[in-house]
Amino acid sequence: MSPSLTRCSLALIAVLGLGCTGPAADRAPSRPPIQLTTAEAFDASTVAPYAGDHGSVYRYIDANLPKHLANIQRWLRQPSVSAQNLGIQQMAELVRDDYKKLGCQTSELVPTSGHPGIFASCDYGAAKTLLVYMMYDVQPVEPADWRSPPFAGAVVDHEHGKVLMGRGATNQKGPERSFLNALESIIAVEGKLPVNLMFVAEGEEELGSPNFPEVIAKYRDRLKQASGVLFPFLSQDPSGAVSMFMGVKGILYFELEAKGGDWGGPTQAEIHGSYKAIVDSPVWRLIQALATLTTPDGNVITVPGYYDAIRQPSDEEQRLLNGLLKEWVTREPLQQKSLGVKQWIDGWTGKDAQLQYLFTTTLNVDGFGAGYTGEGTKTILPHRALAKVDSRLVPNQHPDSQLALIRRHLDSLGFTDIAIKKLSGYPPAQSSVEAALVQAAIGVYRKHGITPTVSPRIAGSAPYYVFTDLLELPIVSGGIGFGTGAHAPNEIMLVEPKAGAKVAGLAAQEKFFVDFLFALANSK
Amino acid sequence: MSPSLTRCSLALIAVLGLGCTGPAADRAPSRPPIQLTTAEAFDASTVAPYAGDHGSVYRYIDANLPKHLANIQRWLRQPSVSAQNLGIQQMAELVRDDYKKLGCQTSELVPTSGHPGIFASCDYGAAKTLLVYMMYDVQPVEPADWRSPPFAGAVVDHEHGKVLMGRGATNQKGPERSFLNALESIIAVEGKLPVNLMFVAEGEEELGSPNFPEVIAKYRDRLKQASGVLFPFLSQDPSGAVSMFMGVKGILYFELEAKGGDWGGPTQAEIHGSYKAIVDSPVWRLIQALATLTTPDGNVITVPGYYDAIRQPSDEEQRLLNGLLKEWVTREPLQQKSLGVKQWIDGWTGKDAQLQYLFTTTLNVDGFGAGYTGEGTKTILPHRALAKVDSRLVPNQHPDSQLALIRRHLDSLGFTDIAIKKLSGYPPAQSSVEAALVQAAIGVYRKHGITPTVSPRIAGSAPYYVFTDLLELPIVSGGIGFGTGAHAPNEIMLVEPKAGAKVAGLAAQEKFFVDFLFALANSK
Repeated sequence: MSPSLTRCSLALIAVLGLGCTGPAADRAPSRPPIQLTTAEAFDASTVAPYAGDHGSVYRYIDANLPKHLANIQRWLRQPSVSAQNLGIQQMAELVRDDYKKLGCQTSELVPTSGHPGIFASCDYGAAKTLLVYMMYDVQPVEPADWRSPPFAGAVVDHEHGKVLMGRGATNQKGPERSFLNALESIIAVEGKLPVNLMFVAEGEEELGSPNFPEVIAKYRDRLKQASGVLFPFLSQDPSGAVSMFMGVKGILYFELEAKGGDWGGPTQAEIHGSYKAIVDSPVWRLIQALATLTTPDGNVITVPGYYDAIRQPSDEEQRLLNGLLKEWVTREPLQQKSLGVKQWIDGWTGKDAQLQYLFTTTLNVDGFGAGYTGEGTKTILPHRALAKVDSRLVPNQHPDSQLALIRRHLDSLGFTDIAIKKLSGYPPAQSSVEAALVQAAIGVYRKHGITPTVSPRIAGSAPYYVFTDLLELPIVSGGIGFGTGAHAPNEIMLVEPKAGAKVAGLAAQEKFFVDFLFALANSK
Repeated sequence: MSPSLTRCSLALIAVLGLGCTGPAADRAPSRPPIQLTTAEAFDASTVAPYAGDHGSVYRYIDANLPKHLANIQRWLRQPSVSAQNLGIQQMAELVRDDYKKLGCQTSELVPTSGHPGIFASCDYGAAKTLLVYMMYDVQPVEPADWRSPPFAGAVVDHEHGKVLMGRGATNQKGPERSFLNALESIIAVEGKLPVNLMFVAEGEEELGSPNFPEVIAKYRDRLKQASGVLFPFLSQDPSGAVSMFMGVKGILYFELEAKGGDWGGPTQAEIHGSYKAIVDSPVWRLIQALATLTTPDGNVITVPGYYDAIRQPSDEEQRLLNGLLKEWVTREPLQQKSLGVKQWIDGWTGKDAQLQYLFTTTLNVDGFGAGYTGEGTKTILPHRALAKVDSRLVPNQHPDSQLALIRRHLDSLGFTDIAIKKLSGYPPAQSSVEAALVQAAIGVYRKHGITPTVSPRIAGSAPYYVFTDLLELPIVSGGIGFGTGAHAPNEIMLVEPKAGAKVAGLAAQEKFFVDFLFALANSK
């Protein structure tokens, strides 16, 4: 997109024949500037590697690895497809019972408006308490597309070594049950854990966690006593590198719908296209309403106030960004290639691209459907048009406030006939790299020979606000290990790396979690 | 739609926050005014009923009706689905052979780039020559939806009497073969016809007549010698009334497509929606490009020059319109109800609505497809967006000129990334109510107790320009009789009306055609 498109109101030219100069162009909307005030860069290599050694526990893990693998297979072989309510209750009970085996004083299913949650509390008389978040549901499967049946949990050969294949292998049963294997190993050797534990699990993560706040609300006061939250995760990319992120964007997802009504247009069904001469078109109305939401290049949001709540990057976020940029130089072309994108918006590169990627809000059309879109010609005036739109939210945007701005904007332009239906929404979440939990994780990565890249946030969304905002706790998604195929066929987790593989297998995964628990226990 | 929306540039408010007043609003685009200069009204009842009486031919028809019905059944039982190339060659040969049986000196298949056409010429030594247009193809069928098999040609009971059911019963084999029955009856009684005949038939009408101009071009000089063109048609509505029309609108049908490319956006497949922060969106581009084509209400075309070619209604068109308006008062609410439309654009009624309906061009979105439009949330940035658009053309618009204006407009606004693909297009067509052929038809309707409503044109399209423009001949779609279910299951033609039915059966249909041929022969 030529930069001039974002600075000159094309709509003006279209409607009035005005040229692209003068005060009109000066008043064209633009993204708010992102101001950087420090050049300091965070460097994870300044964090001391965790120095503890828990040899007897590591040896227990090595000796019991077949049994640990079998524990994970037990989880993978229990289907738990939330979208199809397949095996959900059985999986919830299985997880609850596994928590009980850790000696948790409480482990119970938590009824919600949807699939049950799980809460467990395990007091080992330690000074610190770790809250562990788990999801026990998985995505649907198309068995015909799999090399090994998706609920067989078979060990198969893979370019990186022997892998466990099955739905949930990496997202998320594999690393979750691996984490429990690590806990069981510590208990077997030492009789107890160095930190107390609480677990909150949900069976609707793949549905957007619509009822998870109910689980959090029920135990809020107890959960707030934790030091932080761990989400067990296989963090290594194929080269062995680890990227940590301190925040996630929030999201607002809504539908805009135009339908014929008292105002005009066909109300019951499509009509012959020749009636456009005297009949209003809901499709045109939706197109016109949408067009008022952005500049002609689709990249600057023109809804008044939409950018107003956004705060400037904090000092810490700036330091994390500055650290990240050193890696970005080499990663950027690879990322463009893998996405099939020839250039970013307005030809941004380097810092400009990362600033926009991580610190701005978006308005994206996920889908638009109306009328006939098949082959050839069909001349109809559709009675309905639907657009699905999402907006990624950065601090301090809130989904309901942002949606209210869009509604007010459309109303102010006379688009009161356009219906808005919110499908989901939650605010962003941010943790501090200074949190003991985060420092412990970095220290353990460093012990395992990895200096993680730490990003201020990812551009994607997760409902971590329930931890950072409702419980005011930092959260870390962490662990070494390698998996791939989430939401796709042939999902795997690496169990036994080939010689020369740069990614960790099951035993190393579990030893990481052991170290993390002790590191957290010993942190300030 | 509130009228103010068409007079005030909403895009301006959206982009610049300007109010809806001042010079900007004054310069907003509007439809060109349609100027009426006469209050005279055409009245078909001033045309003298055809006075001829051809009793011996009528009696022949009555005596041979079972055989005539069998002729039509023979046509219906030969499938000829152009879209599926089902029975096309067989049907073309059947029609060609039926023309031969009329004593035509020439009757031949005409190879085209698609299905064959047919040309026949039958010289009876008459002073005048009638050109008859026929289509021998039909729409596809879903047999399960039919009460009687679509290619069985069965006679079944119906609220109006005994009907012939089958694909093509009304569109168009029924009236076409009924017309040939009439011709055969005249020849049987009188030995020859009162006018010479030429036939041009095509097997691709249901595909949009893509290759019919090839047939016309091949015989152009001979065809031009005709007095006019008849398309045999069952013209009565259930109340027995007949609407004639002197013109059809043309059409331009095209696709607008936005795809990722060198300019930006995903080029290979959809990508994760969070990348909207740094990746251009083809969907937004298509929405923004489309939005520049109309005012915010979707009803005024903002493409510079789009209305320029349109001529004002001729004196004759005005007289026809003025005549039509007397009927429109009662028909208008019924039409709104049957369409499910609460009000026309801007609350138009009466003359205002008819003027727009018949004399303006349109820009209609038939369909818009992009990304995910199913249930729930899926966050993607689609790599492609497609809109299907049609424009109904009035005299003197031409599809290619209109498309060139749209291309130029989009280019001038920087939308060079939007691809346009023309799918079909042909200009409008107009005949004069003063043509001998038309006057003969009206006179014969009057003899049969019907005073037709004569509209200057219909808002729909048909490629009649091949007759009116390429051959400079008037065309009339005519005949009494009743049929329904074109393009739908249970298509029928009335054969034997019940007592009290207000619509004509097969015998009356054929007698109308007999009268029409003699009336044309006797016309000035």
